[in-house]
Amino acid sequence: MSLQYLDAGVDLEEAGRLTQRITQRLGSALFGGFVPVSEIKSYEEPVLVSSIDGIGTKVHLAGRLHMVDGLGRDIVHHCVNDIAVHGARPLFFLDYLALNKLEPDLVERIVAGIAGACQALDIRLAGGETAEMPLVYPSGHFDIAGAVVGVVEQRDMVDGSAIRGGDVLLGLPSSGLHTNGYSLVPTIFSDDDLCRYEPDFGATLAEALLEPHRCYVTEMQLMVSTGLVHGMAHITGGGIAGNLARIMPSGLQAVVHLDPPSGLFRLIDERSGMAREEMRRIFNMGIGLIAVCDSSTPIPAGCRRLGVVQPAEASEARVVFSDND
Amino acid sequence: MSLQYLDAGVDLEEAGRLTQRITQRLGSALFGGFVPVSEIKSYEEPVLVSSIDGIGTKVHLAGRLHMVDGLGRDIVHHCVNDIAVHGARPLFFLDYLALNKLEPDLVERIVAGIAGACQALDIRLAGGETAEMPLVYPSGHFDIAGAVVGVVEQRDMVDGSAIRGGDVLLGLPSSGLHTNGYSLVPTIFSDDDLCRYEPDFGATLAEALLEPHRCYVTEMQLMVSTGLVHGMAHITGGGIAGNLARIMPSGLQAVVHLDPPSGLFRLIDERSGMAREEMRRIFNMGIGLIAVCDSSTPIPAGCRRLGVVQPAEASEARVVFSDND
Repeated sequence: MSLQYLDAGVDLEEAGRLTQRITQRLGSALFGGFVPVSEIKSYEEPVLVSSIDGIGTKVHLAGRLHMVDGLGRDIVHHCVNDIAVHGARPLFFLDYLALNKLEPDLVERIVAGIAGACQALDIRLAGGETAEMPLVYPSGHFDIAGAVVGVVEQRDMVDGSAIRGGDVLLGLPSSGLHTNGYSLVPTIFSDDDLCRYEPDFGATLAEALLEPHRCYVTEMQLMVSTGLVHGMAHITGGGIAGNLARIMPSGLQAVVHLDPPSGLFRLIDERSGMAREEMRRIFNMGIGLIAVCDSSTPIPAGCRRLGVVQPAEASEARVVFSDND
Repeated sequence: MSLQYLDAGVDLEEAGRLTQRITQRLGSALFGGFVPVSEIKSYEEPVLVSSIDGIGTKVHLAGRLHMVDGLGRDIVHHCVNDIAVHGARPLFFLDYLALNKLEPDLVERIVAGIAGACQALDIRLAGGETAEMPLVYPSGHFDIAGAVVGVVEQRDMVDGSAIRGGDVLLGLPSSGLHTNGYSLVPTIFSDDDLCRYEPDFGATLAEALLEPHRCYVTEMQLMVSTGLVHGMAHITGGGIAGNLARIMPSGLQAVVHLDPPSGLFRLIDERSGMAREEMRRIFNMGIGLIAVCDSSTPIPAGCRRLGVVQPAEASEARVVFSDND
């Protein structure tokens, strides 16, 4: 028999069958690469805001444990949060899934998760690619990337430039590690640890670690509608300081007070013996979103006052921690 | 010394330095996540057209041979072709690069390639992510994905629905394998083959195989402006039949006449002993783009008449080959 693509590990028939199965299961209304945007004509100065990202090594932990159902929410929420911090309303999402081998169950669970997260947010899944790449990904390995596009009226854009001394920092809790710091998980926890039921979490450690990235879009839209939000930071890679610093204008400093680590972060702290500073650079420490608001802002339910903005020399750090945990 | 992220193979400082170096080298005008689109207000019914994709196992060949400079053009051209076939004008691009280790030279060469390709097309590089994922990618391995967003006036959209009997098929040559079929390369060619100078190509076989994906945007825009184009197919995974079939309306059949394989495709044919049908499912066979046009269309320079559209039973194949190579 002569050489076939299948010999190189690429199964075109399976790819076709899978696409059909997923579309049938989820209905076609959600899908479509053409997104009519006549509504944009009512904007005075429309601006498209977009973001592309992955969910890091969380894919590795989830894949290894065959717990991939939450990864769709991870990638969609991670991306939409990234544009909603600028006041943008998400319009559509695109997904990229690359893997060693097209395992139908794996692909279907991941893509169904992505489609479900898009549906819940009422945004279109405008496109996707599933690539079988046996030479790039080792057996059982895969990666996920996603891109989101949204729109905002230029004058309503939130970019931190309105931040001033006296503003307050409001923090919204994260649902766990979100999508950062997972490269360290195998160093800190054994497989026995991962499978053990943790009464504090009401779940196994693995389940707690794989809790999907929380979506803050509704909360952000509500806060922005008050007109009192001057800047928002989605706490991802680089932690609170890294992400908050990016929106702080020169001559101002955010003073953040963190409580001692709790939940997963306390466990990581106890087990890893990491320096607190290093931990804060990697993990969100329980805060997934920070809004910098006018001091007159009533603190919404579920938010916590994290600190204030104060004047500072331009040479000083834009973000400092006021606690000594 | 206590545990650091670096111990898990993730170097946050290096990531920061790299971003700075790339932005400095390329200038900041090209970059920016906020894309003002007031021009869209002049559209009657604007439609956003988008695509996300990778460049398959070409990344593996290029990485292994340390020949990564063309990969930026590969991913950008692949994506923009995918939306330009619908008549869309590309607005901006987003890139995702994930790798085992942030090797500064590798990352800089890839990202510079992406930025250069965007610059040449006068589109914004609106965002990017470079992710160090040692647990997912083996040493020396990486993957690249990209997303592009463009706009088209609803009534000017090209989607194949205008195709009718008597239309002609015009083919534009590919620059080689483009971004499909690379999983087979190590099965067909030895490393000695790859390094050997091939007089027919005026290059080594590796150089010929890594020739970047050709961009057809200018040619497509010119053809569309005549008003005589009824459908266009970008020949990627699935080959001519797979991609052309998607735009053929029911009750019509594209009859394609291909010359015997030449260049790289002849070499692959000779070496692999693949069945012709299997080759055509995997490779573009030297044709990167097919435009289905009104029969009155003058054939533009660089185009080749590939065949015609004829009536057919709905149950018949949408694409057949008229040759017996």
